[in-house]
Amino acid sequence: MKLVFASNNKHKIAEIQNMLPEAIQIISLSAIGCYEDIPETADTIEGNAILKADYVTKNFGYDCFADDSGLEVNALGGAPGVYSARYAGEHKNDGDNIEKLLLELNGVSNRKANFKTVIALNYQGKQYVFTGIADGEIMRERRGNLGFGYDPVFVPAGYDQTFAEMAQQEKAQISHRGKATKELINFLTK
Amino acid sequence: MKLVFASNNKHKIAEIQNMLPEAIQIISLSAIGCYEDIPETADTIEGNAILKADYVTKNFGYDCFADDSGLEVNALGGAPGVYSARYAGEHKNDGDNIEKLLLELNGVSNRKANFKTVIALNYQGKQYVFTGIADGEIMRERRGNLGFGYDPVFVPAGYDQTFAEMAQQEKAQISHRGKATKELINFLTK
Repeated sequence: MKLVFASNNKHKIAEIQNMLPEAIQIISLSAIGCYEDIPETADTIEGNAILKADYVTKNFGYDCFADDSGLEVNALGGAPGVYSARYAGEHKNDGDNIEKLLLELNGVSNRKANFKTVIALNYQGKQYVFTGIADGEIMRERRGNLGFGYDPVFVPAGYDQTFAEMAQQEKAQISHRGKATKELINFLTK
Repeated sequence: MKLVFASNNKHKIAEIQNMLPEAIQIISLSAIGCYEDIPETADTIEGNAILKADYVTKNFGYDCFADDSGLEVNALGGAPGVYSARYAGEHKNDGDNIEKLLLELNGVSNRKANFKTVIALNYQGKQYVFTGIADGEIMRERRGNLGFGYDPVFVPAGYDQTFAEMAQQEKAQISHRGKATKELINFLTK
């Protein structure tokens, strides 16, 4: 059975393939001839994951899963959330986004935040979602150079290191993406 | 070390005590002489968990954790959420709440929903939150008589049974409350 992962990241695809039985073959967007930018115009993290999965299923006819992630900061009412990747503007980078976040939280003592990943899965005519949450807090300055996005300023609850100071495997055990992926794998291997 | 669980449910207290080393002693509200109703007036699930934990820490001086849970239905914009226990009104019961939910979702094909538990922990001068999510969908009629709340109409993704048809131990493995509790235990035993 072929299942499209709405991504072209070979590493992510291989990682998930390795957790599944051979009968489920994970294929990339390019493998099905989908080269266009898939719209991510929803106003929630879950909405974007669903948009992406539905785009592939409707236009290419494959069962598919897609993910979207964001950082939700309590003192900012859940912002940047679905806008995490473009918090500082459309053509800004991770560093700009972190800078804006630290500025918004300047002098704010409530640093609680969570990362959220939602995976939407279209499978045998039905749609499912799987949500992973990593709770933690926002540091006052960057630490570490692994990972990406807001990892250098996010410390998960109960840890001293930021996500950017953790080895990939350690982070995957406790991260939002790792947890949502585990739910997906549990579902597909049941 | 004494840690208050803002609850008087002996079963829940014993269950968590059993997962912790003896050095951490879980005590109930009545054990510290707290017999009043703790306010739950926040407008989010997380807010209520924090209110309860803070009430105990501020008024009784103990480290404390408290939980709050709710059902978030996608097609209802996340309702009933923090109002899950009183969805049909202040003095209504689980059956009334389920009846209202099924009525609101009458003819609605998007049945996706998730249960969420947030545990707020005040511990050694800092506050932490732990979030557990169970994704699934709302049935069109009740099934099963175990559990409580909306369990009879909630089927977790990848399962055929409702939460109300699952043995307690099976439900705890995949439930929102089970996941949040696991995060708390991981934190306290690290």
